Amino acid sequence: MVANVLEIDADRLWETLERSAEIGRFRDVGLRRLALSGEDRQMRDLFVEWAREAGCTVEIDRLGNIFARRPGTDPSLPPVAIGSHLDTQICGGRYDGILGVLCGLEIVRTLNDRGLQTKRGIEVICWTNEEGARFNPPMMGSMAFAKVLAEKDVLATRDDDGVTVAEALDAIGYAGPVPLGDRPFDSYLELHIEQAPVLDREGCDVGIVVGGYKTQALRLTISGDTGHAGGTPMAMRRNALVGAGYVIAAVNDIGLAYAADEGRTTTTRIESFPNLAGTYAEQVKLTLDFRHLDAARFAAMRREIDAAIADSAARANVDIEVSEGWSWGTELFAPDCIELLRNTARELGLPYREMRSQAGHDAYAVATVAPTAMIFTPCFEGISHNVNEKIELSRSVPGANLLLNAAVARANR
Amino acid sequence: MVANVLEIDADRLWETLERSAEIGRFRDVGLRRLALSGEDRQMRDLFVEWAREAGCTVEIDRLGNIFARRPGTDPSLPPVAIGSHLDTQICGGRYDGILGVLCGLEIVRTLNDRGLQTKRGIEVICWTNEEGARFNPPMMGSMAFAKVLAEKDVLATRDDDGVTVAEALDAIGYAGPVPLGDRPFDSYLELHIEQAPVLDREGCDVGIVVGGYKTQALRLTISGDTGHAGGTPMAMRRNALVGAGYVIAAVNDIGLAYAADEGRTTTTRIESFPNLAGTYAEQVKLTLDFRHLDAARFAAMRREIDAAIADSAARANVDIEVSEGWSWGTELFAPDCIELLRNTARELGLPYREMRSQAGHDAYAVATVAPTAMIFTPCFEGISHNVNEKIELSRSVPGANLLLNAAVARANR
Repeated sequence: MVANVLEIDADRLWETLERSAEIGRFRDVGLRRLALSGEDRQMRDLFVEWAREAGCTVEIDRLGNIFARRPGTDPSLPPVAIGSHLDTQICGGRYDGILGVLCGLEIVRTLNDRGLQTKRGIEVICWTNEEGARFNPPMMGSMAFAKVLAEKDVLATRDDDGVTVAEALDAIGYAGPVPLGDRPFDSYLELHIEQAPVLDREGCDVGIVVGGYKTQALRLTISGDTGHAGGTPMAMRRNALVGAGYVIAAVNDIGLAYAADEGRTTTTRIESFPNLAGTYAEQVKLTLDFRHLDAARFAAMRREIDAAIADSAARANVDIEVSEGWSWGTELFAPDCIELLRNTARELGLPYREMRSQAGHDAYAVATVAPTAMIFTPCFEGISHNVNEKIELSRSVPGANLLLNAAVARANR
Repeated sequence: MVANVLEIDADRLWETLERSAEIGRFRDVGLRRLALSGEDRQMRDLFVEWAREAGCTVEIDRLGNIFARRPGTDPSLPPVAIGSHLDTQICGGRYDGILGVLCGLEIVRTLNDRGLQTKRGIEVICWTNEEGARFNPPMMGSMAFAKVLAEKDVLATRDDDGVTVAEALDAIGYAGPVPLGDRPFDSYLELHIEQAPVLDREGCDVGIVVGGYKTQALRLTISGDTGHAGGTPMAMRRNALVGAGYVIAAVNDIGLAYAADEGRTTTTRIESFPNLAGTYAEQVKLTLDFRHLDAARFAAMRREIDAAIADSAARANVDIEVSEGWSWGTELFAPDCIELLRNTARELGLPYREMRSQAGHDAYAVATVAPTAMIFTPCFEGISHNVNEKIELSRSVPGANLLLNAAVARANR
C-alpha cells in the first residue's frame, strides 16, 4: 500500500461488533433487536456513549435518527455522512446494518488515533427502523428524513400490538428535538454486508454498488366468504386462503422461471381471517415482492404476476385487490461517488467487483437528497435475515479501509 | 296428523331463538359467542334460568356441560337426552347448535303445557365448546364427556391468548361440581341445521342422519429457513410459505377432482413465522381436512394428498411433518334410534330424506356411550359458519316435532 493510506484498527472494530452482539442475543448466535425496543435503546445508548467518548457531538431527530459528528476544520461545510442501522430482524444476525454503523465509528476513532483533522466533518448516522420488522415499511427513518414518507404518517404507524412509533420513541427516550431532514450532507457512504452470496462465492472482498435491482412490493387483499369446511360444496366456496395458495404457488414459479438471470419473487407475510380449523377463510392479506436487474424483464415479470393473480382469483372464486407497496429502481447512486470508490480501491490495491444491490438500504432514500454510494462486504453464503449470518473480519477490513479512505478524501475536498 | 301427536309451540321456539340472537350479536345479523366468553356465560345463564322456570333440575359438570333434566315418573331409569351447543364461530350464525338446544327446551315446555309425564326423564344438554373457535379441538365438551379426550388435557388447553379452559371456566363460573361422564342415557337425539344445501335445494324439511362422511384433519408443520427476500438466490431458498402455497393449491385441486361425488378438501388455519415483509418464512403451520362418503374414495384422496404434500415439500425445498388431527367414520348412529326416527316421521306424515352429515357434531362423541341419532333441518343454501346463516321457522318445525314425538316415544318405553 502507498504511504499515506489509512487503515482501521480491525481488532477494535471486532470488539465493538462483539459488544453489540450481546444486546438482544437470540438463539445463541443471532440477534433480535427490534426497532425502538428495550434492546434497541440499550444499543443506541452504547453507540451514543462510544460516539461521545470519541469526541463526537450527538444529535437526535424527531424519529430517533442519531447523528454523531466529528467536527471538521471548516464548520461551514456540510459533512461526509456514513450510516446504516443498529436494529435487526426478528431472527436477525449480528452484522446486517450494524457493521456499517460501527465501521463509521471505527473511522472516527482511527482519525482520532492519528490526530488527523479533516476539512469537512464526518457524521456517523444510525437510522431508525431500517428493518421494518416491527413497524412497516422498512427504511422508515431514512425515508422520512428524505421526505419520501411524511413524518406524521410515520409517527402514527402501529406495530402488531397497536403501539405507535411516537409512543415507542417516547418509551425509549429517543424522540429527539431535531427537526426531520433539511440536514445537508456533502455525500453519504454506506457499507453493508452483501446479503447475497456473490462476493463470498467469488472470493472477492469488496463490492462497489453501482445500483439496485428494480423492485416492487405488492400487497394483496384476497376476499372470499367464510363457511363450513364440511358442509359447503366445493363449487360454492370462496375460500380466500385457496386464492392465496394459488398466488403463492404461481408467484414462486414465476420467480423460478426468472432465476437464471437473477430474477426474484418472494411471498412473505400472510394474515388470514378467521383462521380457524373447520372454517375456511373470508379474507387473506398477502405481501409479496419481485426484483429484476433488467427493466424489460421486470415488466414481463409484473405482467406474469398480474396474470397469475387474476387466474388465482378466478380459480378460487375470490376477489383480489392489489395495491403497490415499496419500490425502487436501478440507478440510485451518484456517479462521482461511485467513481471515488473505484479510484480509492485502485489506489489501495484492493480487488473489487462492481455489483447491484438486491436488498433495500437506507442509502436509497438518502440518495434522493445527497450524492451517495455503497460498499458491500462478503457474508457467508449470502445468509442474512437469519441468526446464522456470518462474516470474516479479514474479508470485511478491505471494505472498511475503502470507506475510511474514500470518506477522508471526500472530507478534505 | 293422528290424534295423539304432539306439536311444539313454534312461536315460542322462535322467541327463544330471537333472545339468543341478542347475546353476542355480530355484524348485524350474526353471532360471535365464543366458548366460555362473557357472551357464552350470558347465554348459559339465560338457558339455565329458562330450564329452571320449566321445572328442570340443572347440573353442571367440571367442563361446564349443562344438563337440565325434566324428571320422569321412574327416576331409576336413564333419561332420554337431547342436546347440542350454544357457542358459535367467530363470524357465526344464530342457529348452528343453538336450534338443537332450544328445541330441547321447547320440548320440555310443550310437555309441561300438556301436563304430560314421561316414564323416563328428558334431559336437555348444552355441550361446552362444540365449535372449537376459541379452544381447539372442536366438540371438546362432548368428547371429554365420552372419554375420547382426557379431562386434564382439555382443562389445560389454551386459547390464542394463553388462557386455559380451566381458567376460562372459572372466570365465567361454569366449572361445575359434577364429575365428567359416567352419566347413563337411554338414548341421545340431536337436531341440527344441515350446514349443507341438500335439504334446502330439494325442498325437503327433514333429514334423518344415518351416518357421517369419513373425515380426517391433518396438521402440517412446514419447516424451511428464514432469509432475505432480496439477496437470497431462488435456488438457495427454503421458504416455508411457498411449501404451504403448493400444498394449499394442490389440496384444493384434489377436492375439486372429488367434488362430483361430494368429496371435500379444505385448508383452514395458517400460522407463519416470522411473517414479515422482506423476509421469507422459516416455519408455517397449516391445518387441512378432507371428507368423503366412500371409504375407498377417501383412502384414494388420502394417497393423493400425501403425494401432493411430498411433492410440495420437494418443490419448495422444505420439510413437511404431518400429524393427524380429529377424525371420524361413517357409521356413527344406533340402528334402533334411526329406525325410531323413520317410523315417527312416517306416523307424523312428514316427508324426509335419509342423509349423511358432512360436519362434525357432539352426537358423534355421545354415540360412543349411548344409542344416538340426529335430525337435520334446512338452512338457506347451506350457508353456515357465517353470519348469514338463515332458517325458515316453518321448515324447522317439522324436524322439531319429529324430535319431540321420537323423544317421548323413547321416554315412555
